[in-house]
Amino acid sequence: MSRTALPQTPAEARALIRSGAWTGPTSGLAMGYVQANLVIVPEDYAFDFLRFCVRNPKPCPLLEVTEPGSPEPVNVAPGADLRTDLPRYRVFRHGEVIDEPTDISAYWRPDLVAFLLGCSFTFEAALIRAGVPVRHIECGCTVSMFITNRECRPAGAFAGPLVVSMRPIPAGEVARAVQITAQYPLAHGAPVHIGDPVSLGIADIGRPDFGDPVEVRPGEVPVFWACGVTPQLALARAKPDLAITHYPAHMFITDLPDEAIRAF
Amino acid sequence: MSRTALPQTPAEARALIRSGAWTGPTSGLAMGYVQANLVIVPEDYAFDFLRFCVRNPKPCPLLEVTEPGSPEPVNVAPGADLRTDLPRYRVFRHGEVIDEPTDISAYWRPDLVAFLLGCSFTFEAALIRAGVPVRHIECGCTVSMFITNRECRPAGAFAGPLVVSMRPIPAGEVARAVQITAQYPLAHGAPVHIGDPVSLGIADIGRPDFGDPVEVRPGEVPVFWACGVTPQLALARAKPDLAITHYPAHMFITDLPDEAIRAF
Repeated sequence: MSRTALPQTPAEARALIRSGAWTGPTSGLAMGYVQANLVIVPEDYAFDFLRFCVRNPKPCPLLEVTEPGSPEPVNVAPGADLRTDLPRYRVFRHGEVIDEPTDISAYWRPDLVAFLLGCSFTFEAALIRAGVPVRHIECGCTVSMFITNRECRPAGAFAGPLVVSMRPIPAGEVARAVQITAQYPLAHGAPVHIGDPVSLGIADIGRPDFGDPVEVRPGEVPVFWACGVTPQLALARAKPDLAITHYPAHMFITDLPDEAIRAF
Repeated sequence: MSRTALPQTPAEARALIRSGAWTGPTSGLAMGYVQANLVIVPEDYAFDFLRFCVRNPKPCPLLEVTEPGSPEPVNVAPGADLRTDLPRYRVFRHGEVIDEPTDISAYWRPDLVAFLLGCSFTFEAALIRAGVPVRHIECGCTVSMFITNRECRPAGAFAGPLVVSMRPIPAGEVARAVQITAQYPLAHGAPVHIGDPVSLGIADIGRPDFGDPVEVRPGEVPVFWACGVTPQLALARAKPDLAITHYPAHMFITDLPDEAIRAF
């Protein structure tokens, strides 16, 4: 499919995905609309996981929680179906990946609860609009992610370290990067840490725990934002009998324009 | 107790309350610190109520949710005890008030979950600091509150109308009142409605559903903020076997300075 034929609206993008014609990453689809991480757990775990999100809003910014058994995110995309409208999923049994399907209808149960969490696409787009360079996008690689020495606030079965993403920002642009990303608390918001990787427990900025190494050049400062991998690690620790997430970079596309979640 | 002897810190205020020496309203105690509404429900209702709060953040801004069975709000006031540290409570059985004690230790159960929700004290203090008049405080009466024609987003057993508080603001100060209160999303945030009471379903601005009538003078606009009575109505509709709230105006005093919950 050529670039010019990419769907422009969230509904068009979700229809394309639901039809099975699009199974790739969602970056570039329906530009300007909020995309979301997906976490699905049984109701027995859902109150714990919701408390975990509420207590750790920077890594887990809640866009929506569905009613138990309902795959429809009635607030952010009424009419959508979370079982079919993401290009690819990961299915976990007791913390182990057992499948990476493009449709989870066969796994759906009446006790499942879905959580949609904001992701960094929204603030990265805002940085780029403001002329702040975002290195990993320029390079066409994945952002560097690191497991830190900071523990999240636990909730029931869910606990684990804060995971951060790192973007090198020119020293003269760091304050502006803070001001811009702070406007989007539902997309991880302002950085959690600026400079000094060692005090976050990061021994080697060139060796990320996830994603690709991204060069920090002279005159640049490593800036760290809370990352959506954080709840995935907490989920792996809680080991529910069944859990389903989006496949990395294969997100749910909401009907919310990026500006709709701008806090100020 | 004379005004000069009022406790200045949250810990001092809570100790005074816990000792039984203070059973009155908390306005004026530990000025400059965030005070909170309290809602306690059994764990069977807690996931529903937490979804209700997450879906309706303006009337129900979440400061903390406790672990089931724990009366300690570990994030906003570590060491405090929600069973003893409010001056007065309301105890409900199946939606009916059965007691208004100054201590709820006798009602505590291992399945209870406590929710602390931000209240308007924080933004009212900010308005006053900025020189925006707050009529009901000047008059020494209770803010006017109205049941609106807007439904909250429901969650499980919890549903009901949005309740708003109304403050008359000089027309030239309304924009500034918006800007100031928007900075405190955990204290109800920006107004939900400005002017035109009729389209909110308010037939007579002089006859509030709760609180005292407050005059709207020529040159003033009625400005409406989401109100913490909203979750109380939803609770009355859900009718859990046991629920406990603060007694009106008898709030929980957190360790958070007002500025700590300022979003920007």
